[in-house]
Amino acid sequence: MRLAVVGAGAVGRSVVELAGEYGHDVTAFADSTGAVVDADGVDVAAALEHKERVGSVGEDEPSAALGAAYDCLVEATPTTLGDAHPGFEHVELALERDRHVVLANKGPVAERYDDLMALASASDGEVRFEATVGGAIPVIATIEGMGPSHVTAARGVLNGTANFVLSRMAAEGLGYEHVLAEAQDLGVAEADPSFDVEGTDAALKCAILANVLHDGGYSLADVDVEGITEIPTSALDLAAEDGRTVRLIGEVTEDGDVRVGPRLVTANDTLAVSGTQNIVQLETTNAGRLNISGRGAGGPETASAVLADVGRLPER
Amino acid sequence: MRLAVVGAGAVGRSVVELAGEYGHDVTAFADSTGAVVDADGVDVAAALEHKERVGSVGEDEPSAALGAAYDCLVEATPTTLGDAHPGFEHVELALERDRHVVLANKGPVAERYDDLMALASASDGEVRFEATVGGAIPVIATIEGMGPSHVTAARGVLNGTANFVLSRMAAEGLGYEHVLAEAQDLGVAEADPSFDVEGTDAALKCAILANVLHDGGYSLADVDVEGITEIPTSALDLAAEDGRTVRLIGEVTEDGDVRVGPRLVTANDTLAVSGTQNIVQLETTNAGRLNISGRGAGGPETASAVLADVGRLPER
Repeated sequence: MRLAVVGAGAVGRSVVELAGEYGHDVTAFADSTGAVVDADGVDVAAALEHKERVGSVGEDEPSAALGAAYDCLVEATPTTLGDAHPGFEHVELALERDRHVVLANKGPVAERYDDLMALASASDGEVRFEATVGGAIPVIATIEGMGPSHVTAARGVLNGTANFVLSRMAAEGLGYEHVLAEAQDLGVAEADPSFDVEGTDAALKCAILANVLHDGGYSLADVDVEGITEIPTSALDLAAEDGRTVRLIGEVTEDGDVRVGPRLVTANDTLAVSGTQNIVQLETTNAGRLNISGRGAGGPETASAVLADVGRLPER
Repeated sequence: MRLAVVGAGAVGRSVVELAGEYGHDVTAFADSTGAVVDADGVDVAAALEHKERVGSVGEDEPSAALGAAYDCLVEATPTTLGDAHPGFEHVELALERDRHVVLANKGPVAERYDDLMALASASDGEVRFEATVGGAIPVIATIEGMGPSHVTAARGVLNGTANFVLSRMAAEGLGYEHVLAEAQDLGVAEADPSFDVEGTDAALKCAILANVLHDGGYSLADVDVEGITEIPTSALDLAAEDGRTVRLIGEVTEDGDVRVGPRLVTANDTLAVSGTQNIVQLETTNAGRLNISGRGAGGPETASAVLADVGRLPER
């Protein structure tokens, strides 16, 4: 399949690097300031080298990628809230051209799901978004396989940065600020970690899960969110004395409530994954509880979810 | 989709009971001694009541189900080794009629994979077999989504009976024979538990995983198998002193070797699931390690995997 990849952060870069391995051609590649388009296949190494040297992947206008010849748009620009601009408009353009769309950008799926589905149903293109929840973990495909009506609830650890911080605080008895600085040094936390530690990122993923399970109607505003910034080391010590620990758990309840917050779990609970791991638990009508865990972030990991989605699309 | 369900054990019964909930009609249903066929939809409750009362699901010859009007054959007769008779012939008939086939029966997939794929490629029907590995756990769909070439190895706990016995032995310090008798009382182990405790069942599942990962060539004879019948309680006690425990682990290695046997794992290892749980770990090229765990057996659980497979088939 011919891919137009918009966004050249860790995920977009990994998608263009790995596309060939999955049997696809990149015919367009753009970041926020430039683009490269080639119907015979973009020279990926040259584009990445151009970005390294000049700051953009190519000399064309970014919009050139959206107008190029492709079968599937991979939308991997940064997640934005509210109107999910400009990711939503990229998706809209592609679907209006009857192209498929695979999203790594959470914004359009979390914030404008109903608009997104309306565009998809009016298009010959399909929309997929496995990479928006749990990185490499095949959560959306598993729900799709079971059928959303057979999944009654979902919960899990959906943010690796917050989980790393909580795991380290509990294991080493260190304070929040200390561990956060360490995580920033390691590249596990961003310079501005607020999206992760305040629970926003996990909340967006939960809004997406709620949309999938309940056929839309949810956005970030519907999620009750509490982050991990106020958790004292003493709370983790007290939990440990009782054989428990704290994890930032996001959940979509059977009643359709959506919330994210620190929760006590037993230290050997399946949910108590450590480090940057993510896990999702699905409660099902006929198959009990399913657990899926793995790497919830990272360029190649998230790109593998994007490319699995591309593989699930019908040929155009 | 119209289903012909062959086999009326726990899985076959659950498939006919749940088919309607997934939007499908059962137009034929057979066990080894009888069948019921109705192009407008079999009266499932009456068929199950007939089986309870008379011993067979209906008054027709079993072969009538295979000749009936249906879109997909669900093959849920007991697993047999070697030529996988009669399951293989059922599948053959359906594919020759260009019908889809979904298997819960491990025999044809573990023992005659290459024959099965040859029949499928000559047919307009497709073959799926999620239910043959790990019950409710979506292992095959996950490998399919990643692409088999991106999964380098697989390992896991694939037999709930053996895992129940090992978990209980370790937790209670009880001997093998004692725990096995208890498992038989609870219905977790069969009267003849040899398939489970000698590792055969796990080995068949590993042969299936190897066939999927390596595009065929494997059968039970290619699996190095050791069961759990010779494990003394003292070995579990020694392991526990060292923070470890024993699990019956099946694996397909990166070199393509396939083996099943008791292995020491750390007590808090992801693989150390307890009770009748199953888990599969996949090592991937781009997404690190994925873990999927849940109920590895049971009528409704396995039926949910069968019906998920039916949902993945193209319309005929």
